[in-house]
Amino acid sequence: MSNSIKLAILGLGTVGTGVINLINDNLDELKRRSGRDIIITEVGTRRQRDDIDATIIQNSDLMATAASDNVDIVIEVIGGTTLAKDVIMHAIKHGKHVVTANKALLAEHGNEIFAFAEAHNVHVAYEAAVAGGIPIIKVMREALAANKIDWLAGIINGTGNFIMTEMRDKGRPFADVLQEAQELGYAEADPTFDVEGIDAAHKLALLASIAFGIPLQFDKVYCEGITGITLQDVNYAEELGYRIKHLGFAVRRDGQGNADAAGIELRVHPTLIPQEALLANVNGVKNAVLVNSHPLGQTLYCGDGAGAGATASAVMADVMDLVRVLGSKDRDDQNNTGHHVPHLAFIPEQLSDTPILRAEQMTTGYYLRVHAYDSPGVLADITRILSDAGINIDAILQKPAHKVGQVPVIILTLPVVESQMNLAIEKIEKLDTITDKVVRIRLDELE
Amino acid sequence: MSNSIKLAILGLGTVGTGVINLINDNLDELKRRSGRDIIITEVGTRRQRDDIDATIIQNSDLMATAASDNVDIVIEVIGGTTLAKDVIMHAIKHGKHVVTANKALLAEHGNEIFAFAEAHNVHVAYEAAVAGGIPIIKVMREALAANKIDWLAGIINGTGNFIMTEMRDKGRPFADVLQEAQELGYAEADPTFDVEGIDAAHKLALLASIAFGIPLQFDKVYCEGITGITLQDVNYAEELGYRIKHLGFAVRRDGQGNADAAGIELRVHPTLIPQEALLANVNGVKNAVLVNSHPLGQTLYCGDGAGAGATASAVMADVMDLVRVLGSKDRDDQNNTGHHVPHLAFIPEQLSDTPILRAEQMTTGYYLRVHAYDSPGVLADITRILSDAGINIDAILQKPAHKVGQVPVIILTLPVVESQMNLAIEKIEKLDTITDKVVRIRLDELE
Repeated sequence: MSNSIKLAILGLGTVGTGVINLINDNLDELKRRSGRDIIITEVGTRRQRDDIDATIIQNSDLMATAASDNVDIVIEVIGGTTLAKDVIMHAIKHGKHVVTANKALLAEHGNEIFAFAEAHNVHVAYEAAVAGGIPIIKVMREALAANKIDWLAGIINGTGNFIMTEMRDKGRPFADVLQEAQELGYAEADPTFDVEGIDAAHKLALLASIAFGIPLQFDKVYCEGITGITLQDVNYAEELGYRIKHLGFAVRRDGQGNADAAGIELRVHPTLIPQEALLANVNGVKNAVLVNSHPLGQTLYCGDGAGAGATASAVMADVMDLVRVLGSKDRDDQNNTGHHVPHLAFIPEQLSDTPILRAEQMTTGYYLRVHAYDSPGVLADITRILSDAGINIDAILQKPAHKVGQVPVIILTLPVVESQMNLAIEKIEKLDTITDKVVRIRLDELE
Repeated sequence: MSNSIKLAILGLGTVGTGVINLINDNLDELKRRSGRDIIITEVGTRRQRDDIDATIIQNSDLMATAASDNVDIVIEVIGGTTLAKDVIMHAIKHGKHVVTANKALLAEHGNEIFAFAEAHNVHVAYEAAVAGGIPIIKVMREALAANKIDWLAGIINGTGNFIMTEMRDKGRPFADVLQEAQELGYAEADPTFDVEGIDAAHKLALLASIAFGIPLQFDKVYCEGITGITLQDVNYAEELGYRIKHLGFAVRRDGQGNADAAGIELRVHPTLIPQEALLANVNGVKNAVLVNSHPLGQTLYCGDGAGAGATASAVMADVMDLVRVLGSKDRDDQNNTGHHVPHLAFIPEQLSDTPILRAEQMTTGYYLRVHAYDSPGVLADITRILSDAGINIDAILQKPAHKVGQVPVIILTLPVVESQMNLAIEKIEKLDTITDKVVRIRLDELE
């Protein structure tokens, strides 16, 4: 076939090797779909590898590969935010299209990278950066392009979902499951990015930008991990018909007439959701994103959020899109952004400065676990405080005392602004009958 | 904004009106994403409407609107396979891009329509033709473009899914629920297309073509509806951990060394699937498609499969894709198929002639309900016949007699070629102890 497409892969870890394997396995499908030959001409790798086809140049100078005349598309799968950034900027400068799976880099430096790419009339594609093999970037940028997106909620960290699933299914405590996840290779030796929600926050920043047409604002994502979730809370939630999942939310709030309350909530936190919701039944390392948009309504996208095969699938989907760009007649003059999808879904000059709300401004339902001495009137005191703060109780569960004289009271509330809840909890904790800090977990009906 | 895009809508029923409403509601989003103005210049409608903006030309001559100089993209939402075909061919002939939601037309005449479009260098987009607002066409043609698709299974008829859901949830018989579906407007006055699986078969033909790169072959889809499903079978299935859903399957079989058995299964039928599968928990009028591909693995796409908003969302996603095509610099010479997605995902000369298997060649598990006199040895007779035919039993359930002396025996089998099962059932029905025809429903573990 004419006009072969020349790829460079920078980094030969799990994902880089997965891309090579995919091309070996599916070259016939790739050619039948694109009408072009797809060739890896060069790989950037520090260490020479003897398991790579001899026709592929192995170059330990990654910057040279990123700028090579022998390359149309540069695939960056090194990871990290230093060398990866350098090679991407270098590739862009030399007119190469870039495909990357690097969520941390884009969440933190995406505005700069995309602007640089636009200035050089090339594209930086990043389907693999969010939810692995689930094509959520393409879906939101293209398939939902005619919708106004109201909110999205996603299980976007497989390790966290694995841990929450095992805790519930097997009744195992957090630390125990985390150790298994590390042994299985799902969690890193340093699991901070996964269990503290930072990885999810990176992905949420990307999703929110393409949902609402706002610049990337990773630093404004409210982020809460799963390290504080106990089996006790998992079980109470189930008893009340809910399940605790670690979710990322991006929500557009119109402020209901109050301009100060209008803006976007970006938050990552454990959340009680109804057991019967499909999202509650996405288990193990699977990822899923639920998008609510007008006029489409709710759509759900589910699949593997990590792993060599899923990530390679997303990387090569981006390559196939770029093959069409490279196949256009005006290849020599690529200043034709009119027919390409904008990096952040909306054209750059149309990105909006809608404010990101602070945590205290965010509105969610709550699960509260309050420990009190079993004295008359304690329930009346708590409910009066909540009522005075304008907080509506949706359900209440008082369990028999598990220590002598002490009973946990579980309360589910309707949505309330966090600042209101903060004040109410402060008052509850000052009651003489309350023996511990109030445990709170957010709750969402996904409606 | 410069370069406005001019749309014509042919047909002002539910969907056409939905498209007008979407553009009214979301024009700002459409402009922010595309950088272009989107204008409805003309509508084709037999009956003049006074609720349409006065700037829009209303034309009762649909052929004239399809060819109008005042139009870039023609949206066909008339339905049917006669006038709809004429206006689409006419629009193509006049160099218009076409967007259609017409599954019946494409399933039956798509090969001809797409070839005509390719000859005229225009595109016929059809996201809305399958699974309504779920972007399954874009996902399979673009997002999974680097994968080899092994099989897909889909709930692709909302009416059928509503009926199956109500039967299970409320224990209501088929006829009763069908009547309610008609009253709710989910089912047509003549529900044949929905309950006999023909509508699902239309959609399956489209999905199979873009999954495997084969021409459209609606006439070869094996098609079984839900009219024969009884509450008794719904309940037995649940008891055994399965749920009956009406599904469309497209499966690639390599024949395992037997060339005669290699080919593609296209089938629509009620199916027992495991209760814990996400697909089993897609309820009511929702649609969902599960795709198994290499190297990605399983991904699931779920949402509204019908309705004005969902369909308009898909129609306008196609329009947004075409806006980029129209925005390309080589707009005057559109013979640049190199950078467009092929109609059937694979480039036309690469479509394959892989045979479609006949029903007798198809391989699935089975649920069997056998009614027998409760005489010694009857179970031994049945299981021996199955065993002799090489059919493995996965589960068996013998319920107490519901008529005097008669007991239903429920048997679940592992996958077997249908011709084998036909022979076995023939033998079972000849046993003296068997009192009725054997009821069979296919079963799939979705693995």
